[in-house]
Amino acid sequence: MSKVITPRSKDYSQWYNDLVVRGGLADYSAVRGCMVIKPYGFSIWEKMKEILDNMFKETGHSNAYFPLFIPKSFLSREADHVEGFAKECAVVTHYRLKNSPDGKGVIVDPDAKLEEELIVRPTSETIIWNSYKNWIQSYRDLPLKINQWANVVRWEMRTRLFLRTTEFLWQEGHTAHETEKEAIEEAELILKVYAKFAEEYMAMPVLQGIKSASERFAGAVETYCIEALMQDGKALQAGTSHFLGQNFAKAFDVKYSNKEGTLDHVWATSWGVSTRLVGALLMAHSDDEGLILPPKLAPLQVVIIPIYRQDEQLAAISEKANGVVEALKNAGISVKFDDDDKYKPGWKFAQYELQGVPVRIAIGPRDLENNQVEIARRDTREKFTLPMDGLAAGIESLLEEIQSSIFNKALKFREENSHEVENYEDFKSIINGKGGFVSAHWDGTAETEEKIKNDTKATIRTIPLDDDCDEGIDMISGKPSKCRVVFAKSY
Amino acid sequence: MSKVITPRSKDYSQWYNDLVVRGGLADYSAVRGCMVIKPYGFSIWEKMKEILDNMFKETGHSNAYFPLFIPKSFLSREADHVEGFAKECAVVTHYRLKNSPDGKGVIVDPDAKLEEELIVRPTSETIIWNSYKNWIQSYRDLPLKINQWANVVRWEMRTRLFLRTTEFLWQEGHTAHETEKEAIEEAELILKVYAKFAEEYMAMPVLQGIKSASERFAGAVETYCIEALMQDGKALQAGTSHFLGQNFAKAFDVKYSNKEGTLDHVWATSWGVSTRLVGALLMAHSDDEGLILPPKLAPLQVVIIPIYRQDEQLAAISEKANGVVEALKNAGISVKFDDDDKYKPGWKFAQYELQGVPVRIAIGPRDLENNQVEIARRDTREKFTLPMDGLAAGIESLLEEIQSSIFNKALKFREENSHEVENYEDFKSIINGKGGFVSAHWDGTAETEEKIKNDTKATIRTIPLDDDCDEGIDMISGKPSKCRVVFAKSY
Repeated sequence: MSKVITPRSKDYSQWYNDLVVRGGLADYSAVRGCMVIKPYGFSIWEKMKEILDNMFKETGHSNAYFPLFIPKSFLSREADHVEGFAKECAVVTHYRLKNSPDGKGVIVDPDAKLEEELIVRPTSETIIWNSYKNWIQSYRDLPLKINQWANVVRWEMRTRLFLRTTEFLWQEGHTAHETEKEAIEEAELILKVYAKFAEEYMAMPVLQGIKSASERFAGAVETYCIEALMQDGKALQAGTSHFLGQNFAKAFDVKYSNKEGTLDHVWATSWGVSTRLVGALLMAHSDDEGLILPPKLAPLQVVIIPIYRQDEQLAAISEKANGVVEALKNAGISVKFDDDDKYKPGWKFAQYELQGVPVRIAIGPRDLENNQVEIARRDTREKFTLPMDGLAAGIESLLEEIQSSIFNKALKFREENSHEVENYEDFKSIINGKGGFVSAHWDGTAETEEKIKNDTKATIRTIPLDDDCDEGIDMISGKPSKCRVVFAKSY
Repeated sequence: MSKVITPRSKDYSQWYNDLVVRGGLADYSAVRGCMVIKPYGFSIWEKMKEILDNMFKETGHSNAYFPLFIPKSFLSREADHVEGFAKECAVVTHYRLKNSPDGKGVIVDPDAKLEEELIVRPTSETIIWNSYKNWIQSYRDLPLKINQWANVVRWEMRTRLFLRTTEFLWQEGHTAHETEKEAIEEAELILKVYAKFAEEYMAMPVLQGIKSASERFAGAVETYCIEALMQDGKALQAGTSHFLGQNFAKAFDVKYSNKEGTLDHVWATSWGVSTRLVGALLMAHSDDEGLILPPKLAPLQVVIIPIYRQDEQLAAISEKANGVVEALKNAGISVKFDDDDKYKPGWKFAQYELQGVPVRIAIGPRDLENNQVEIARRDTREKFTLPMDGLAAGIESLLEEIQSSIFNKALKFREENSHEVENYEDFKSIINGKGGFVSAHWDGTAETEEKIKNDTKATIRTIPLDDDCDEGIDMISGKPSKCRVVFAKSY
């Protein structure tokens, strides 16, 4: 079987596209910048959704659903917000088509022009805060902690499957609180939830921190983020949580009366992760043979493939295999016995490798004789045998071992590709060389940040949250720096 | 506490709106015809989704996601389809806003006009079949059985919360098959799935049948439907499953080669249910005190309310109540102990009645002495005591009893409001009187159907599927009729 995936060393970008398309995760669509998420890709997103949704509910959030459309005037209510989103949005201007006079197809009916245009939501702060105005009167109505799973549209000029698409799926949390302190705690709590999800489920180590003013969400006072390192040395922003201060409460006049009866604007957060996480997951771990998926997010964790020549052999193998399937299912492991005779074992091996099924079990006549199975680990590509007796327990601990091994490999990669530098020459040499995270002193000005971006395309990915900052000297301006910040080129 | 719900007898339509708004299920939004689904309403939809999603997966379907936008020209590919949907769709014409020259807000940037307008999907047959063209080449690629959970937009002139909104949430299944027979079987299988869901989970009896040509989905060869009867004697279409023949395969040129290598167009189905089901659920069972929810779809099945004067009493009640909570949770029952001291028991009673929590448990000091609890059933409003010992088992069977009791009540109502008539006078007298389902002979022509609709507003809701039709004479034309069909006024 010929290689279906372009090797990373040859063309990293093409490698990623091959993973997505040949792996059956997504496809291009007829609409510019919009993708089709195919069943296999969608099943990964479904697993992510289910886990995150539970984490949100456990931390006291409820789901709701707000309109797809936002009246144009709403966007303008918050000055930074409109500045950030007006340039990349889909605008609905009409509500009807009619038959074309030439009899060919349909045209927009000019009589069906909307009085006020509607924007397809790029994010929902404005339409949601317009509702919150009606829902919040008193401290009894607070905190209000709502999440929605939705599609959003941002008219991106350059798109990449999963990583940046015109339409994407995401969740957006929108909370309202009595005090500034409580809202900041909420934004930080969600940052922890995102980091836990990335590390424990996606097996993807992340840096946690805040963004510089220039990288902040349009309308936020502070943007918290998690940042992961991809195999090509570029960073990928995997989730953001925003402390919005009273900006949207003021824009939509949302006030509450406290226990003493005094009126004040409420404090807000918003936060989101998207189908971009599927792209991050693929890019973080996969290799030149295809996907490598951590078992906790793999739609199929184990596949069993029979190796046989005669039908009687298949019958004997099937009997054993069905027992294994049952035992694994009872242990909560997802498993498929693939006895489809349209394809040969070699083809199946390659196919499941491509799709990143963590564990492959092969059973042939000799395995039956020896009461054993042949195991192949997708992540390390190691092969070994395991006894049939107690197999479920063996597979269970193997899946755990794979989960932590994938994480540790990614962590080691990040450590090997994280550098502290003291001067701009070293900075440029690393950023323009193999890349990675580069920690350096920064004077806190937008000017220095801008110069670095123009010189090298690197941006500040995170400003660390911890208090154990060491003070120093900005590598360019020579001015004092309160803390090292982390730079990288990014997706 | 004053009545918050308008009685049905006074204004049925207002009663329904009060249920939705005062019950905290949904709210009007700033966008014409679009609603906000609030957390309580959304949690009912989430329960519906989860159950239906499992039913689809158990019958071999996978989820995927296709673009929100459809190029305008795609709609025109299937002649009936464009005729059915062009008149009610949101059209995206531009992809950017810019600052208004007068400095006030933003305007649509005329330089950002799309070459081809995009339609916000009213349904996804066209964009999906455009993908299927690339995915289907051989019989090995069939059957293709995909579902998506999505939002869709139809520019409705008259909207009602949940029942008919401009944007709504739904699932749409789209399948492709080798043969006509297989596609028809799929459409009928889904009809059974929908009917089972309506009856076993929603406790809502439904008629199953097919639509007359005039009520068929735009582009379908046959539309199967389930129809429920509401308390005001009007029918509500609760789900449809369409056999599409080869219409979309031909429009998008989707052919497969069979085992012999011959090329043929594939056969298709599509099917969907929407957030309209939430409206149907409310309307079918609720009363003048508020919602009545069948336990299988109630977000909260049991609430426990402490009745006390002193704090020591609350402490003693809480201890017992926590034990009950644990026992119920272990039995898989959702339960909340509401010891919020901001509200009095009477207020809570009314609130949980309004929201339709099936079982209310009250525990006071005397109940503790007698080792019992006071139970109130929401559906019948009966009150009785149950011993504390073995309470979980008692509640479990009570919930089952409530589920079937709600169904039986709705079934009895439908039976009492279903009539066979032989002549048009009787027909009109019932339809214009108390309404309900009216079964009558029909000659099969669009003319008779049209006349009845113009005279009475009643339409054919279903043509029965069964073979045990009795032949007869059309009540208007006097021409022969092969079968009785069911008429009603409808939502």
